[in-house]
Amino acid sequence: MRAARGRQGNELPVWFMRQAGRSLPEYRAVRQSSGTVGAMLESCRRPELVAEITCQPVRRYEVDAAIFYSDIMVPLKAAGVGVDIVAGIGPVVADPIRTRADLDRVPALEPEALGFVGEAVRLIADDLGDVPLIGFAGAPFTLASYLVEGGPSKDHARTKAMMAGDPQLWAELCGRLAQISAVFLQVQVAAGASAVQLFDSWAGSLAPDDYAAAVLPHAAAVLGQVSSVPRIHFGVGTGELLGLMTSAGADVIGVDWRVPLAEASVRAAGSPAGTGAAGRVVQGNLDPALLTAPWDVLADRVRAVIRSGARAPGHIFNLGHGVPPTADPGVLTRIVELVHREGPTLRADSDVVAARRRL
Amino acid sequence: MRAARGRQGNELPVWFMRQAGRSLPEYRAVRQSSGTVGAMLESCRRPELVAEITCQPVRRYEVDAAIFYSDIMVPLKAAGVGVDIVAGIGPVVADPIRTRADLDRVPALEPEALGFVGEAVRLIADDLGDVPLIGFAGAPFTLASYLVEGGPSKDHARTKAMMAGDPQLWAELCGRLAQISAVFLQVQVAAGASAVQLFDSWAGSLAPDDYAAAVLPHAAAVLGQVSSVPRIHFGVGTGELLGLMTSAGADVIGVDWRVPLAEASVRAAGSPAGTGAAGRVVQGNLDPALLTAPWDVLADRVRAVIRSGARAPGHIFNLGHGVPPTADPGVLTRIVELVHREGPTLRADSDVVAARRRL
Repeated sequence: MRAARGRQGNELPVWFMRQAGRSLPEYRAVRQSSGTVGAMLESCRRPELVAEITCQPVRRYEVDAAIFYSDIMVPLKAAGVGVDIVAGIGPVVADPIRTRADLDRVPALEPEALGFVGEAVRLIADDLGDVPLIGFAGAPFTLASYLVEGGPSKDHARTKAMMAGDPQLWAELCGRLAQISAVFLQVQVAAGASAVQLFDSWAGSLAPDDYAAAVLPHAAAVLGQVSSVPRIHFGVGTGELLGLMTSAGADVIGVDWRVPLAEASVRAAGSPAGTGAAGRVVQGNLDPALLTAPWDVLADRVRAVIRSGARAPGHIFNLGHGVPPTADPGVLTRIVELVHREGPTLRADSDVVAARRRL
Repeated sequence: MRAARGRQGNELPVWFMRQAGRSLPEYRAVRQSSGTVGAMLESCRRPELVAEITCQPVRRYEVDAAIFYSDIMVPLKAAGVGVDIVAGIGPVVADPIRTRADLDRVPALEPEALGFVGEAVRLIADDLGDVPLIGFAGAPFTLASYLVEGGPSKDHARTKAMMAGDPQLWAELCGRLAQISAVFLQVQVAAGASAVQLFDSWAGSLAPDDYAAAVLPHAAAVLGQVSSVPRIHFGVGTGELLGLMTSAGADVIGVDWRVPLAEASVRAAGSPAGTGAAGRVVQGNLDPALLTAPWDVLADRVRAVIRSGARAPGHIFNLGHGVPPTADPGVLTRIVELVHREGPTLRADSDVVAARRRL
């Protein structure tokens, strides 16, 4: 929490996107014993199960935060949108949203429909004690892409065509989705989440001008509704968008592995590199594809991420994307140990501290 | 050809990546009648068929260049590597290359094994007359990813693990692939290709430091072997890599839609934006997902691309990625007409010309 507010000094917290989930044997076991295998959205509706899954990686890895176990489709489903998660495919929307008439099928989300979320968050907060829980929601653009395409898409062609071709319809759809995402996060915060992360998984597919005009305002509408807690904003392949995504109202910008953290921090502040402008707090950004590299190689990459992040005004260590389902949990344990053991020393290096102060 | 050399003035040439292929009914017809449906690599080995497919889009669209119809796997297959293209999947490698012993299965490619390529290029050059043919090859990193993973991969985890964990083995594999790509291009140039494009489809998945250390030298080895003709270098999501990819020996940098061309031109020159350093010739960069947008909207996007490209020292109009299989050829025809009709006027705008001169 101190890191998210830019007041961490040389401490270095760490958590992993998708730390709860398929890579953990205890997760697979509890999904099995709960009878929710193949029923992802159902698993997100059972408070005890959600609490157990959310807390599993905190126990195993001793990470510094939990991330709420859910799915970006959960609040849509709770609002009454016809969506499901199909194994091997992902989110599937029964009737895609493509016309003005279709908008009726995206109703407002009432907090009362999320009782199971509040209950799960309360159980988690009790269990975690001092460890903060990060709330979770998908951003309007990514939700809209699933609704417009009808499922996962490589190129988001129908979505982009609506955005460009019928800006009014697009804005109304995203307005509804922003309301849904905001309520989903507000319920989590009210029940005890200490921070939130807004995932705009597909934002990196957009040109900066399109993001600024048609996506940023809706992400800002969501983040503006949860300004009482630190807000993390993340997408993959968003190197060109870091300044815009921060200006949507993020306290921390999540960064994939394509941009070094020191550079990302400056871009997030909306200033050209080298101008000495203040940077922003960053989260990331070890390439998850490297988790299978030999440990010595991986450890050096972890150290490089720490050194680059130390030049930003704040850094929360993470991967640059979610934990792959095939990841070896033992490797993640070693990364947490390394970050906690060497992070403060690497961050305290005098050159690095001087660079941080110059920002 | 003048544009590729930075001497186009206000003329604006246009072609489309994947202009030859599935989006064209005449392509589907000739694949059908040739009995090569489901046999992609076989279709690339028949000179008359390759020539017909390569020339189809030039006839239909009146684009300013043809791109050699082939597949990045063609030279690997010709060298004796066990690869095939499986419908619905993509390239599949029978026995992935993961150890030093596996390297024996990646032999050198002799030009004599590419007789069918030279023959096809000669037929095409005869047919095209003054229209230039752009030669085609995949870059070592992208080829290596298929060989190491055994097929398409989202995260290239095994590839990156080899790159990081066994740099020597990685360098030897890429050295062999660079030889294969270089010979494939050299045969095309010797037979009449006027320019070449090196596709590094997956390079955008890499962090800049990794690209610089482990990928750039091998792309440079390929491009250095075809320096007698203009060389285009392209990958998707390579906004962070444009300077490095240009320094590998490219005369023209291909750009996807995520970075405006004026900015890309400066990055390609390896200079921070706003420093007034010389830019580079760019190719691109209309988002292919917008091909389904209403024509008026799309036309304005085409004009915006032209205006941004006019600020670079040279511009070849293209999409920011390949033509989608579902694209409407009629829309591409209209884009070519628009580029040819309005391009010179838009490029001649005095402000734009002044900006170009300042670069």
